[in-house]
Amino acid sequence: MKLFRHGVAGSERPGVMVDDKHYDLGDHINDINEDFLADEGISKVAALVERGGLKEISPDRFGSAVHRPGKIICIGLNYRKHAEESGMAVPTEPVVFFKASSSVVGPNDNIIIPKGSEKTDWEVELAVVIGKKASYVSEEEALDYVAGYVLHNDVSERAFQLERGGQWVKGKSCDTFAPLGPYLVTKDEVKDPNNLKLWLTLNGEKVQDGNTDDFIFNVQEVVSYLSQFMSLLPGDIISTGTPEGVGLGMKPPRYLVHGDVIELGIEGLGTAKQNVVAYEKL
Amino acid sequence: MKLFRHGVAGSERPGVMVDDKHYDLGDHINDINEDFLADEGISKVAALVERGGLKEISPDRFGSAVHRPGKIICIGLNYRKHAEESGMAVPTEPVVFFKASSSVVGPNDNIIIPKGSEKTDWEVELAVVIGKKASYVSEEEALDYVAGYVLHNDVSERAFQLERGGQWVKGKSCDTFAPLGPYLVTKDEVKDPNNLKLWLTLNGEKVQDGNTDDFIFNVQEVVSYLSQFMSLLPGDIISTGTPEGVGLGMKPPRYLVHGDVIELGIEGLGTAKQNVVAYEKL
Repeated sequence: MKLFRHGVAGSERPGVMVDDKHYDLGDHINDINEDFLADEGISKVAALVERGGLKEISPDRFGSAVHRPGKIICIGLNYRKHAEESGMAVPTEPVVFFKASSSVVGPNDNIIIPKGSEKTDWEVELAVVIGKKASYVSEEEALDYVAGYVLHNDVSERAFQLERGGQWVKGKSCDTFAPLGPYLVTKDEVKDPNNLKLWLTLNGEKVQDGNTDDFIFNVQEVVSYLSQFMSLLPGDIISTGTPEGVGLGMKPPRYLVHGDVIELGIEGLGTAKQNVVAYEKL
Repeated sequence: MKLFRHGVAGSERPGVMVDDKHYDLGDHINDINEDFLADEGISKVAALVERGGLKEISPDRFGSAVHRPGKIICIGLNYRKHAEESGMAVPTEPVVFFKASSSVVGPNDNIIIPKGSEKTDWEVELAVVIGKKASYVSEEEALDYVAGYVLHNDVSERAFQLERGGQWVKGKSCDTFAPLGPYLVTKDEVKDPNNLKLWLTLNGEKVQDGNTDDFIFNVQEVVSYLSQFMSLLPGDIISTGTPEGVGLGMKPPRYLVHGDVIELGIEGLGTAKQNVVAYEKL
């Protein structure tokens, strides 16, 4: 199944896509969030779909596929070629950082270039959605704790991230820096998360064109690894890193400007389109 | 006022302390969390206190003073002497990292030394609780966005933080690593957050004994600074760094072991006491 949230920002309703048709779930469940996942929500939706009679809709806006994740954990430099283009050593264990949950927006919402930013960059990523609490889980059992997958643009301000002292979080957490969606695709629909094409275009030009088979640490390894350091809770997002082709890696580097248009997608997870707007022009 | 949460972990009820007496608020408000603060909750509690008739209680356990903060933002190396003891340069702008909200526990709950940890350390900190959404606010207006203050032990695993690749978050986010409370003390009760004594004892021996007047970046500067990078939301926690006297800075370094007892406090914010338990002995 493909779960989604639709409607006006801040008042989204849940929905489900089956056989390319969108259905509203707002009369049956509250939201797609931690409580939903913790409370066997996916099974409940499957039963609703089975029963039939859901109202078909044409969503005019998608919200983030998961509402207010408890945490957004990102893996840095997790594709061999991206590590190389960033001029960084290939990590010997996962590089981990967080994004603020306040940075989440819908998949087709505007990306706002923050005040004073000159180095806002893109990163198409496969994000994992945790389905149940995971603490000290092995790689073998890691996928048992995964609810599904979602498309994520890990928008990054490189000067804030790399030139403003110590930790990356400053350049990863700006408002609108985490467009998430359109769909939370349940894991039964994803044959192998470690072999998915993903791409990103800037104004129609393909700048990222990778496959998760280039992962340094695959989904199972990442989930297991993180669970050694903290409990992963239902609705938590793990963004698994980006392939080569970000602006930082271009020669010379190229960054987003007002008016740019980004489109991105992952095989089986859908696509998203974001207009880039400078804060000063809001 | 001093707001708190009391009762069994996971089912805490809100309460308020006035004139050293504790009163239950569970019949009047839902919780001390983002929604409470966004919805003028502090004013509502003030009206309830004014009206009188609240039920006096003797809390047998305090929960975290704020339930599930949307984010926990920490400032690193924010006391001159602590930066020196850590062997790090005094930062020219705030060093920022996040802790996972899943690390939050009550102020007197056990601290669990994670599996395989040999370098679990303590950090008494003044934490700021945001009261309303703050984006691009000036230092002059920063305190208008603060609801109050809370005592925080920013528990840290130094090997996970510093020896496992790149970013600090791995050593800051383990379960139980953020005892928060006992009280969310509203800002009207704190004359100057930049002049508060704070201390921490390990098995009765005072190891940290500082004053927030040693801040490199004071509360106003930190709130304003962070708001340039992300929106701060009601209930968000900003932990302002720790004074000298952590285990990492001792010669030789000293870390927590099973059976240790930590007590900590901040002038006007109350005290907390944590027993240290090894994961293997749970």
